[in-house]
This record gives sequence, C-alpha cells and structure tokens, in this order.
Amino acid sequence: MALPGEKPIGRIPVIDVQPTLEQGRWPVKAVISEALPLRATVFIEGHDAVAATAVVTHPNGRTTRMPMDEVNHGLAIFEAILLPRTEGRWSFRIEGWADPFGTWMHTASKKIPAGVDVELTLGDGVSLLERALEDKSLSERQRAVLVAARETLRSGELSPVKTLEAALTDDLKDVLRTHPVRDGVTSSPEYPLNVERERALVSSWYEIFPRSEGAKQNTRTGEWKSGTFLTASKRLPAIADMGFDVVYLTPIHPIGTTHRKGRNNSLTAMPGDPGSPYAIGAAEGGHDAVHPELGTMRQFRNFVKKANGLGLEVALDVALQCSPDHPWVKEHPEWFKVRADGTIAYAENPPKKYEDIHPLYFDNDPVGLREAIRDVLDVWVDAGVTLFRIDNPHTKPLEFWEWLMADFAERHPEVVFLSEAFTRPPMMHTLAKVGFHQSYTYFTWRPTAKEMGEYLEEVSGDASYYMRPNFWPTTHDILTPDMQRGGAPLYRARAVLAATASPSYGIYTGYEFVENVPRPGVEEQIDNEKYEYKPRDWSRADEHGIASLLTTLNSARKSHPALRRLRGLTVHKTSNDQILCFSRHLSAEESPTGRADTVIVAVSFDPHHVQDGIVTLDMEAIGQDADARFLVDDVLTGAAFTWGRDFYVRLDPAGTMSHVAAVRR
Amino acid sequence: MALPGEKPIGRIPVIDVQPTLEQGRWPVKAVISEALPLRATVFIEGHDAVAATAVVTHPNGRTTRMPMDEVNHGLAIFEAILLPRTEGRWSFRIEGWADPFGTWMHTASKKIPAGVDVELTLGDGVSLLERALEDKSLSERQRAVLVAARETLRSGELSPVKTLEAALTDDLKDVLRTHPVRDGVTSSPEYPLNVERERALVSSWYEIFPRSEGAKQNTRTGEWKSGTFLTASKRLPAIADMGFDVVYLTPIHPIGTTHRKGRNNSLTAMPGDPGSPYAIGAAEGGHDAVHPELGTMRQFRNFVKKANGLGLEVALDVALQCSPDHPWVKEHPEWFKVRADGTIAYAENPPKKYEDIHPLYFDNDPVGLREAIRDVLDVWVDAGVTLFRIDNPHTKPLEFWEWLMADFAERHPEVVFLSEAFTRPPMMHTLAKVGFHQSYTYFTWRPTAKEMGEYLEEVSGDASYYMRPNFWPTTHDILTPDMQRGGAPLYRARAVLAATASPSYGIYTGYEFVENVPRPGVEEQIDNEKYEYKPRDWSRADEHGIASLLTTLNSARKSHPALRRLRGLTVHKTSNDQILCFSRHLSAEESPTGRADTVIVAVSFDPHHVQDGIVTLDMEAIGQDADARFLVDDVLTGAAFTWGRDFYVRLDPAGTMSHVAAVRR
Repeated sequence: MALPGEKPIGRIPVIDVQPTLEQGRWPVKAVISEALPLRATVFIEGHDAVAATAVVTHPNGRTTRMPMDEVNHGLAIFEAILLPRTEGRWSFRIEGWADPFGTWMHTASKKIPAGVDVELTLGDGVSLLERALEDKSLSERQRAVLVAARETLRSGELSPVKTLEAALTDDLKDVLRTHPVRDGVTSSPEYPLNVERERALVSSWYEIFPRSEGAKQNTRTGEWKSGTFLTASKRLPAIADMGFDVVYLTPIHPIGTTHRKGRNNSLTAMPGDPGSPYAIGAAEGGHDAVHPELGTMRQFRNFVKKANGLGLEVALDVALQCSPDHPWVKEHPEWFKVRADGTIAYAENPPKKYEDIHPLYFDNDPVGLREAIRDVLDVWVDAGVTLFRIDNPHTKPLEFWEWLMADFAERHPEVVFLSEAFTRPPMMHTLAKVGFHQSYTYFTWRPTAKEMGEYLEEVSGDASYYMRPNFWPTTHDILTPDMQRGGAPLYRARAVLAATASPSYGIYTGYEFVENVPRPGVEEQIDNEKYEYKPRDWSRADEHGIASLLTTLNSARKSHPALRRLRGLTVHKTSNDQILCFSRHLSAEESPTGRADTVIVAVSFDPHHVQDGIVTLDMEAIGQDADARFLVDDVLTGAAFTWGRDFYVRLDPAGTMSHVAAVRR
Repeated sequence: MALPGEKPIGRIPVIDVQPTLEQGRWPVKAVISEALPLRATVFIEGHDAVAATAVVTHPNGRTTRMPMDEVNHGLAIFEAILLPRTEGRWSFRIEGWADPFGTWMHTASKKIPAGVDVELTLGDGVSLLERALEDKSLSERQRAVLVAARETLRSGELSPVKTLEAALTDDLKDVLRTHPVRDGVTSSPEYPLNVERERALVSSWYEIFPRSEGAKQNTRTGEWKSGTFLTASKRLPAIADMGFDVVYLTPIHPIGTTHRKGRNNSLTAMPGDPGSPYAIGAAEGGHDAVHPELGTMRQFRNFVKKANGLGLEVALDVALQCSPDHPWVKEHPEWFKVRADGTIAYAENPPKKYEDIHPLYFDNDPVGLREAIRDVLDVWVDAGVTLFRIDNPHTKPLEFWEWLMADFAERHPEVVFLSEAFTRPPMMHTLAKVGFHQSYTYFTWRPTAKEMGEYLEEVSGDASYYMRPNFWPTTHDILTPDMQRGGAPLYRARAVLAATASPSYGIYTGYEFVENVPRPGVEEQIDNEKYEYKPRDWSRADEHGIASLLTTLNSARKSHPALRRLRGLTVHKTSNDQILCFSRHLSAEESPTGRADTVIVAVSFDPHHVQDGIVTLDMEAIGQDADARFLVDDVLTGAAFTWGRDFYVRLDPAGTMSHVAAVRR
C-alpha cells in the first residue's frame, strides 16, 4: 500500500521542524529582513552531545549553513534566526548530528581534573582535532588554530588540567562552531519559504470611492456629476501627507443598469443613482474596462503615476462577479451557472435573489475562466496597479486561488493580494496558506480588551508564518455595534490599535468624520457610499483630531521597526479589564536595523469614562531586566515617562485613550 | 527544486486529517474495539452544502465507506467513529465533496414555501434524484425509495409545499446518506493505522525478581540459595488471584562476576552476593541463556505454561548491555566501543565508570547487531514470552528501535513492547511513534493533584493516538520522595490512581508491604532487590489492605470498559486542591459493549489528614444532563451514593482516600 511521507527516523532524530505548513505542502512566508526563527527538535540516544545546523538555500541556489543554538534543553529545541535579504523562493532543512568534540569536551572536563584516563582522554582529543583538520573548507587561519590546539594537547609540557585549559580557547570553539566534526548527520526534508517585498507584510491602506472625490450635485436640478480619476487624484497629496502608503480604490469598472440597486440597497434605482461599483459590467466593458464617468484608461494611468510620485501604491478592488450587462454573460455563458430553464443564475440567499449580480461558476470551464481572470488582472498590473484587494474570495474555489497566486508569484512576485475572507476560520486560514499575502481578520469583531488581547496573541503566533493580518476598524461594508456607539473616542482608539498591533492596517475614507450612523437593522453605514456619491468637506477633516492622529501613527510606524513586524507582540497584565496593554519588541538580532526596538501600547476600551489602572509588564518579553526602570516617549503626545515592571496609566476618552510609548535606547 | 509533499488543495479542501502523525510518517495506533474518531476539516467556497466520507481500508484490502457528521460547524470539522474489529495494518483517507442534494434541500425549503421558482426548483430535485439513481450499488429497496421520491416531485398532485414534504422522507435521507450524489470529490492522502490486540493498550503488570521467590538463607552459614523458576511459579496463583494479567520478570540471564556489584550498589560484591541481573552475561551465556541458578530453559518454559494456564502472560526484561563476561565481548568486539588503547569502553558518567557494564555500540555494525538482538528476542518468543519490557531504550539509537518494531510488527504482531523511557519528552514520545506499544511515563513524578490532573489530560489527549501510558507508583529503581513519606495511605491512593487513570498500570512486588525506606541520598529502596535476594512473607500480604485493594481494582477494570480505554478522561473541578477528581466515560457508540460506561474517581493527595470538599462535574463530559441526579456504586467499598453536578466527598487516609464510583445505568 502506498502511504504518504513514510520516512525512517534516521540516525539522529530531527523532528517538528518549524516554521512549516503541513510538512512543506505550502511555503511559509517572510519579507525582506523579517526575522524568521528556524527551529527543530533534535536529540540523540544516551548522553552524547548533539547539535544542529540549518541549511538554507537561497533563490539563486546558493546554500548557507547556520549553526543552531539549543534554546530549550528539556524539549531539545534548536534555533537559528534567519534574516533573508533577497526576494524569491527559498528553502531550508535542518541537519542533526552527533558532536563528538562536544562530548569529548564534557568528558575531558570531568575526567582530567579527576585524574581518570588522562592519557587516553588527551589522545582522544588529538584524534578529534585530526578529524576536524580534514575539512577542506578551512581557511589557513582556522587551520592554524586547530593545529595549535592539537599540539597543545600533544605536547605534555603543562599539567593535564592546564593542557586542557590551554587547548580549549575561544578561537578553537569558534572554528569548531562553523567547521564541526559531525557524526551520523541526518537531514530533515527540505521545506519551502517564500520571501516577498516588505509591502507584503507592511502597509497602511486608505480606501476611497474615486467617484465621490470631486462629485458635485447641481443644486438646481439635484443631478449629480461623478468625480473622476482627475478630481480624485487631487485628494492624493492629503492621503500621502497622512503617511499612508497604499490608496485602495473600490471597483472602477462600468456598472450594470439591469436591476441596478438604488440608495441604501433599495431594489430599484432612481434616475441618476450611480449604482454599486460591485455590480460590474455594462455595454462599455467588464472587469478590464474603466467606467466612462471616471475617465479613460489613460487617465487611470495618470492617477497611478501621480500616486506613485507621492509614494503611494495603488490597490484595486477585484470583485469576481458580473452584472447582467457584463459582456461575459453573453460571450461566455459557460462561466455562469445555467439553470434547468436555460437562464443564468442570479446570486441568491434563498428565497432572496440578488438580480443585479451573476456569480461566476468555475466548474464548467475552470481553465478558460481562470485564464480570463488572470488576463484581466494583467491589464491592471500593466496600468501600474501593484496590489489587489480581493472581494469575497471565500465564494470562489480554493484551487482557483492557489493557481492564481502561483501564477502571479512566478510572473509578478511584486503584486500583493489582500483577501477579504470574512468567513469561518478554516477558509480564512487556507486562503492565506494557498498564497494570499494579506488577510482581513476578525479584528473588527473583538470589542473587549480581553478578546482583542487573545486575538492579537493568536494572529502574531503560529499563524504569523502564513497569514498576515490587515486590521480595519471599519470598511464601507462594516460598522460594528460598538463603533456605532463609541463616538470619536472609540474611532481614535481603534485607529491606534489597528496601526500599532499589526504591520498592515487600513482606514476607509470618512473615518476622520466619525461616520457612525448605521442603516437601521444592518451593521453598515446609512447612505452607504456603495450606492451613491459621497463627497466630503476635507477642510473639516481634523475636527476630531483623527487626521492628525493617523499622521502621527503612520510616522511612528515608519520610525519603529517593531511596529512593522507581526511577531514580537506580547499582551501584558493590567489591573483594569477595560485596558489592553501590549508591547511590540524586536531584539537587535531580529531587527532589520540591528538595534533593538520596543513600543508599549496601552488602550482603553471604554469610550465613555476615564479608565485607569496598573500595568504589569512581562519584562523578559521586552528585553528588560526584571527590576529595570526605563524612559519612554509617548509618540502620541510627546510626553516622557519613567516606567518599570509596574506602572500607572490613566486613559481619557477626551484624548486618544491610549499610550504609544517608545522605549528610549 | 524538489520539495516534499507539495500537493494542490483540490476542488474541496480536506485538511487537518486526524488522527495522523506527521502527515502519515508513522501509523497511529488502536486496539481491537477501541473507538477511533476519524476527523477532518472540510469546507467549500460559498454557501453550498458540503459533506465528507471516511474511506477505511481493512488489513485484507477491503474498504468501508463511513458517512461523517459535522461535529463543529464553525470550524468545519467532520467526524466518523471507527471501532476496528480486526488486527493489522489499516489505513484511511477522507473524501470531501459538494452535496448538491443537501444544497437543493436547503434551497427548496426556503423557495417553495415562499413561492419562488417553484417549478424550476422541483425540477432540479427530479434531476438530482435521477443522478442518485445512476449508482449501481443501490439495492432494489433503495432504488424504490429514490424512484418514489422522484415520482412524488414529478406528480404535481399535491401543493408544492406538501409535495416537498412528501418527497423528503427519512427513508430517502437514509438512502442518500449512504449513496449520496457527490460533486468535486477530493481525497486526502491515505493515512496508516495499526490495530493491535487489546493487551497492547490494556494490561495490569506485576513485577517480580524470580530469584527472590523461594530464596532461602541458611541460618547457620548465612549462605543464600536462589529462588528458581519452579519456586517462583508458586507465587503465580496469588498474582493471578489478584487479577493481574502480566507477570514481568527482571532479567533471568547469567550474571557477570567481573566487577560484580554488591548490596546497595556497592562497588565490591561480597562472597555470595548474587549480583545485579542487569549485568548480563557470563561463561554460561548471554541474553539468550537462563541463569543456571534459576533453572533451565525447559523449566522457564514450564513457568510460562503455568502462568498462561492461570491467565497470566509473561513479560521479560530486555537490558541491552553486557557484563565483561558476556560472550559477545570476545566474539563481537565490533558491537562495543573500542577505545584508543584497544580496550572496550565501560558505561560511564564521567568521571564515574561503571565497570560491571559495557554498553552496546550500534555504529560499527548496525545490521549485525540488530539481527543478533532480534534473534535473542526470538528465543524468548519461542519460549512463550509475549511482552518485553525494554530497559533504557533511550540509550540506543531510535533507528534501531524503528527497525526492530517494524520487524516484530511483521513477524510477531502479538508481541507487546513496553518502553522504559524515563528521559526528556521528545525521546519518550518518539520511541512511542516509532512503534513501542506502551511507555512508562512521568506519572511517578506528579506528586500534587494539580500536576497529576494536568498530566492525565495530556496523556489521554492528542498523545493517546501513539503513546499508551503504563502507570507505575514505584519500580525497583524508583521511590520518589512523596512515596518515601506517605506511608500506606499514599501507597493505597497511588494504586487507585494508577489502576483507574490508565488502561495499563504496574505494581512492583512488595508494594503490598509498603517498602518505602530509601537508600540515603538516592530515590530508590534501601537493600535494593537488584543486588540481593529478597524473599517476602506473603502470609502478611494484606496487612495494609493493599493486596485486596489491588484485587478489587483489577476486578473493576475487568467489568468497566471505560477503565480499559485511554481517551474519555475528564478532570473535574474540586473545591480542595488536595483532591483530584476525574471521570472515565465511554458513550455507547465508543464502547466495545455498545453500552455507555462511566466511572468517577476522586483521590486525595494528602496521606496525613482527612480532606473533604465539593466536586463540580462537567456533566456533558460524562454524558449526563446538567441537572441530572444519578446513582453510583463505589467499587472500593460497595457503598452507593446519589450524586449530581455538585457533590461532597470526604477522603480519609485511614481508608483508601478514594472513591471509584461506577455510575449505575
């Protein structure tokens, strides 16, 4: 019977290699200069010394050998920290081996002082150094170090104890660390690792409906004139000035007229209603066209160019569904579900039907459809789009996404895909595993400090090797009950949380105005921008202090590498269950700058009252001695404090209800 | 680059298949009639119905298809419970599939009452039943059920709502459960499962040094006469009467005289000291010989026969090490480590040497040595031994054990190996993974109720699919500080714990006498039986009530299947941290008898004072309603109680400090 993966244990067990996904079924992910701890459990029978080496293969095929340290002796865990410096497909494996010189050092350190087997033991040391000298890759200097040690052991000029001391120099240990004598070398399988550009992990998104920016209503007729790429581009400098690095556009394609939805999702559009940009496709074209009201493809390219010039990348929304007027409905009925009566199926949630939308159906012509979708995305990549926000990926087959992600990883590895996987955990996580670079998460549905703390630990834990969260306090589709009721204080606090707890976060335009009135009975905004033009008066953008808060937060993210990483997050104890405190910490070894970085964030979850309490830090987690006192600078206010293990915080809804405190080095 | 296990996600994701070890690298374990939950996470894009089937392949190659139930919708977990009824190498895989009839039932139940798409919907149902009828494996009766439903949907005699009701009979659902219409069937890999005889999981061991049983000292000369297989066999009826099913003999081979150890591990034996049976090998032979003082091979066979006749199997100790007098030392110096001066290495813990022992060295001639060991074990299997207790397996290479276990699984699948892996967790667990049937554990080193409770949850959790614990309160080598101080009350309580918390447990002879005096500075008994004869006066065996307690416990184990399983253990809350309460529960579906079985155990950890408190049961875990009251019979005392969620216990060191309460059905 053929069974998968049966593989003998080998001379030296090397098990539980991390980080890996299902024994290498999918690659784990990292970005340039992101610290990746490579780990394995390595042990040997009996009491001899054992050691491990991480063998890392770079995208160019070159290999690097990294000595590993035993970081947990009881559990026999070895670790090396990799900071990859090039993009591409890496791989790694772990070699376990018996370390006869390590065993000998231990034995000799016991026997020689005790006067037991002295000659024999020194002779064993000489033999091992002879073996070490067989290594052809030794430099002249290294060889000299080994020869010197061997001669010392041989010479007999000193007492045995002094001989041993004289032979075992730090130089010798250094040479043997990189050029060890190894017995019974046993390798794990090879495991894949994708290294991507930093934007795949680190991004701050600002979402707009381009038609709203510059939209104008004729006060006499009531008629609207749509904003355009040109008018929307006038908003770009302000977005860039706030420090965002991605401007995300909801769909920009022609909008269907058949069964067009009206304001507030009403079934019948009034004359002049612009329709939902998610009802994609009309006579003017489908997913590869621009809505004529927004402008032309050339104007879109100019929009992208202007954004890029301001340091902004452009993300485009990809909603793989069609209005009844989409060209594919006629040209490719095989890409839709055809019912028994020959009609093309609408989207539905029985008994409700959504007659403005036909879902795509992948099972008739999966290859034709996936290639058409790939070609559509290529159009936008060609126009300068470098990120895609994928609408409802969980309603399309996983195997399609797996193919698409592999295709783009090969042809356009720079393109970043954000998965809007608001669904059950297995789907959300598997979308990440098959290649999505980022994912929306349950952040928005964690209204209490306790739930949020647990969630932050979850996303920054084992899941961090494949799923990169993108935290959104609200979206054009989501306005949770707590956000409806918490007012400006909660809007400010959630912005702080989103921007500091995850390397990627996003803000839906209008957040500055605390647009928190829901359509009755629905957890989304009233007068949803999906169904109408929504120009805003940007001269009032900082009335709640949110525009300047976002600017400050984005600036802190740029200056603190700890805020640009997912791992290194620790939740600390507080005496008040309305207060969440967490730290972001990178040791010097893990930091892209080579310098340690620590930021401590405390946030209140009560937008109605002042909350205060004592925070008790896990000092080890932030690289401090248990009794240390240290200076912090609150990047939100500029205030400086001296904190230690326990400190007092008072968080006032009148301000940000938060501290974002950078430890001064 | 060749990377392991890369495998597309497939049309319907089937992930996290359980129970499996490293994606099938090693088989998981079960015994005949042990319930094994087969699980997988199975989901589909969008909102269609999805389902899963476990496809189980029996040792004879036949396959069984088991419909799975979704036991956790949020996490998309499907389960089927397998109770294997034959021994051998099984395997299983999980198929995920879209369930168009399930989708249709959901849709129809919404649309038809709402009057939406009625004709079309009923027609879709007819088409699906046509597809179901294509299944060639349908019986005539099943076919008739499908045809009847199809005709009902077609007839139009009733109102649409009534038509649907009339068509969707329980009979129809039953037929479609076993003969479903399946779309996009996607299979997991095939995973291995070893099914062994019940003794591999369920056993109660009684350990003796056969030379002690019937040993006599000449009162005049002080000289000892060794016990023999013949005299030891006289003890067998008493062991069988207590209800044990395995009698375990420490090594029975010739003992070396060179550097023989004396009493209490002294370096020099006095004349007449019998030596440690773990210093194996003398002129009379090695691991395949019997010590002449014990008798002959024929007498050993008679011992085995007598044991078997009493319902006892015989376990033999296997200590893979040699005295300097072992024949292998001369005949096979390549099976030992030879030092630079040509001498054969002793066992050592530098600077200490153990000159009575040469460890075997596997790296010179691994094939020759492993075959010699296999041949030695075959000698004993041939003599009727059916279990081996492996001394210090963690000082021999894992790859040797993996080979030996595979070899025995093939040639002698009835033979059970118990691993004495008193070492770090990775080694202990990996020995179990590579094929040991049972393992000593850290049970002996969990002196508090809290630590013990956590440990019981650990061994009965995920580890239960590969590691079967064997709980020993003491051994000839181990007498922990708490056992030195707790007197008879603790000896009684630990016997209760060992016998009820694990399907396998063991007692070292003399436990009945509370032999708890340590050799100073060492956690083992003074006058250790390893170094001297130790006959006991069995007429006093029940002075502490322990012999009769063991009899009662073994009897309870025989009548309660819940005590013969590893899973189904739940630790319950108690108001007193000196009291541990846990239950053993099998649902009717999981029970080999087809009837549910529940035993609730409460044990005090304080041998010096009465302890009382309130137990709060997790009622769901024992298959009871939250407010149920039920009768229990304490198998230790015969007393009956009425218990509910909360009940009071008072545990007195004068007795067993325990309840072992069987829920009356």
